[in-house]
Amino acid sequence: MDVDQYMAELGVAAREASRQVAASSTAVRNRALLAARDALDGAREQLAQANARDLERGRAKGLDAPLLDRLELTPAGIDTMLEGLRQVAALPDPVGSITDLNTMPSGIQVGRMRVPLGVIGIIYESRPNVTVEAASLCLKSGNATILRGGSEALASNTAIAACIVQGLESAGLPQAAVQVVATSDRAAVGRLITMPEYVDIIVPRGGKGLIERISRDARVPVIKHLDGVCHVYIDEGADGDMAQAIAINAKTQRYGTCNTMETLLVAETEAASMLPRLAGAYTAAGVEMRGCERTREILPQINAATEQDWHEEYLAPILAIRVVDGLEQAMAHINTYSSQHTDTIVTRDHARAMRFLREVDSGSVMVNASTRFADGFEFGLGAEIGISTDKLHARGPVGLEGLTSQKYVVLGEGQVRT
Amino acid sequence: MDVDQYMAELGVAAREASRQVAASSTAVRNRALLAARDALDGAREQLAQANARDLERGRAKGLDAPLLDRLELTPAGIDTMLEGLRQVAALPDPVGSITDLNTMPSGIQVGRMRVPLGVIGIIYESRPNVTVEAASLCLKSGNATILRGGSEALASNTAIAACIVQGLESAGLPQAAVQVVATSDRAAVGRLITMPEYVDIIVPRGGKGLIERISRDARVPVIKHLDGVCHVYIDEGADGDMAQAIAINAKTQRYGTCNTMETLLVAETEAASMLPRLAGAYTAAGVEMRGCERTREILPQINAATEQDWHEEYLAPILAIRVVDGLEQAMAHINTYSSQHTDTIVTRDHARAMRFLREVDSGSVMVNASTRFADGFEFGLGAEIGISTDKLHARGPVGLEGLTSQKYVVLGEGQVRT
Repeated sequence: MDVDQYMAELGVAAREASRQVAASSTAVRNRALLAARDALDGAREQLAQANARDLERGRAKGLDAPLLDRLELTPAGIDTMLEGLRQVAALPDPVGSITDLNTMPSGIQVGRMRVPLGVIGIIYESRPNVTVEAASLCLKSGNATILRGGSEALASNTAIAACIVQGLESAGLPQAAVQVVATSDRAAVGRLITMPEYVDIIVPRGGKGLIERISRDARVPVIKHLDGVCHVYIDEGADGDMAQAIAINAKTQRYGTCNTMETLLVAETEAASMLPRLAGAYTAAGVEMRGCERTREILPQINAATEQDWHEEYLAPILAIRVVDGLEQAMAHINTYSSQHTDTIVTRDHARAMRFLREVDSGSVMVNASTRFADGFEFGLGAEIGISTDKLHARGPVGLEGLTSQKYVVLGEGQVRT
Repeated sequence: MDVDQYMAELGVAAREASRQVAASSTAVRNRALLAARDALDGAREQLAQANARDLERGRAKGLDAPLLDRLELTPAGIDTMLEGLRQVAALPDPVGSITDLNTMPSGIQVGRMRVPLGVIGIIYESRPNVTVEAASLCLKSGNATILRGGSEALASNTAIAACIVQGLESAGLPQAAVQVVATSDRAAVGRLITMPEYVDIIVPRGGKGLIERISRDARVPVIKHLDGVCHVYIDEGADGDMAQAIAINAKTQRYGTCNTMETLLVAETEAASMLPRLAGAYTAAGVEMRGCERTREILPQINAATEQDWHEEYLAPILAIRVVDGLEQAMAHINTYSSQHTDTIVTRDHARAMRFLREVDSGSVMVNASTRFADGFEFGLGAEIGISTDKLHARGPVGLEGLTSQKYVVLGEGQVRT
């Protein structure tokens, strides 16, 4: 198979389909989503068989247990996919809204219309449920999708895509609105991210290595989510109970998520009172603490944090702790070491809260709330295709709106420029 | 001089300055703009001398007349720069506004705050006035700037930058908020566009060749403006006088601008009545017409358009004309050949107007108005750093808002995730 040729064919078909999807009504796209749901529901047997083939091949290749776990499509996992499709169909359609329509001195009315991006390339690892999730969000927002999942999940993804295509067809939408790359050749990824003539944006979902590689080589814009080095700063005079609740929740509610706190900053005025009680709670939860010198004066039993610790996304029960002079030093630390994902201040002081909100340069900046809230669902987006640590286009959790852009529309009555 | 080292130093200083500018108040930034205006006004003599040196070197190097013309800084040109600074100071500050602040089921309030992008790299050719224009828009929107103008204008740009720095200092802002690259070594551009650690976005201003080169090599996002292949489509049943006014204005009001119409599409029902009267007006204006076969059945005196003509941005008194079956074929033509800049329909039909608005995938899509309106000032943005033919981040004319992005802000009262 000539991969370049094959990918270009997918690209041409996707571009063509994207125009039809963009021009389709909300009702038609919702019908396709619900029909895909029914098709998946009716194909449970085939999905199970395809998934069993992937799992068998995976075991033969010696994939490790967590990978096999992510690859597995259980009946409950299928239920979740079906429910996801229903939910996406129920979301409001972002496409077509016109905002800020104002009359200019020339008499023309100028506004902005929200429109699909066009063709979205999704590159992900071996979780087959991403196929449904990504395809449904792209379709809902009026885009065509080219999906490239992990080669381990190819049979499962192909079976899922067949159901989605059934849904598209039954609603009168083109099959090529959702295409799965049907080769496990790695060159396909290289081509997908370098054909801006056919692909408008790439959304990679997976580990940092994958995303760095794609961002480096892409000639198409990438909505990227690198690491989540998130901070909680306990400000001078903060409510101790609130600070403890947030600092414990942000670290221990889940260890492996990108919005988990990795470094705790404590104002020196609060260190003597906060650190011992927090240390008790962290120790009880099995969290290893690594502290700066001032932290270790209060908690001599913990290990010293190295420079590397401030950069680290542990994704594990480990926490770096630093005592800072106050807000200035906390913000300087965050703006130096944060991955610009999510950072929180716990404070009673309005002016310092506002400064933190303004001056911390991260996708989600919070006052008196756990970093764990940085999430498309918790933010009311209804869905999430990913979290962006970029500054352009979309910052923070990316929902349907992040898969669209705005163009200018002008309504005239024959005006010409003088 | 070690260019890599030098550019990295500019980058570090710009990044540091960007935080101070972002944290500064609107009043301080406006004060800097007005002080820069006064400094320029007081430095007319030095500006004239610096510009004379550039012009002399340019003449010695054999630059052509249009280039020397763009390079020249006349007293009237300086007046325009001063007035520009005053206008930018008077614009509303986009930074800091919080929108869509809603309460979520968890009790947290989630909104979006508009924030500067950070450090903006501007790459332009030999027009010194761009130095003031770009620096003032970036500063107003809370960003730091690194400016790389054409080497022909280095003395003029350095003299202008010195005045801007005076303005910054008198307002208490860091000098490095506006830096001019002080070397004409071409390697400086290569470095500027490949240091994402220091530069958040590149705005190239210049010819298509420059922009293509930069977009190809950049590792930093680029707000790019490639060509303007703009269309006017005269729909079935359009008002003939309105169609004529718009088709003539869009082509002849100015030939060299990116929002000038390059291809006219005429519904076949209107061809017999519209083409002869338009041909008369175009001929009177000295516009050369190139037509498709059906056009030439009505206007046998004009030359045939080739495939290449549909792709062409003439920037000259030349116009390609095609007769189409109707709306479908017009939109298919536009979505094939348009550079996604600006396209207009002239119509009486509401449903077709709405379809055109929705389905034409360009930065500015118009009904019954001249393409020449696609401009930051005409759109009410108050200023324009450029026009984007991209889909991400900013489409169409880019004003202050295009130099900012939105981050999420969360206001809680101690909420944690359960």
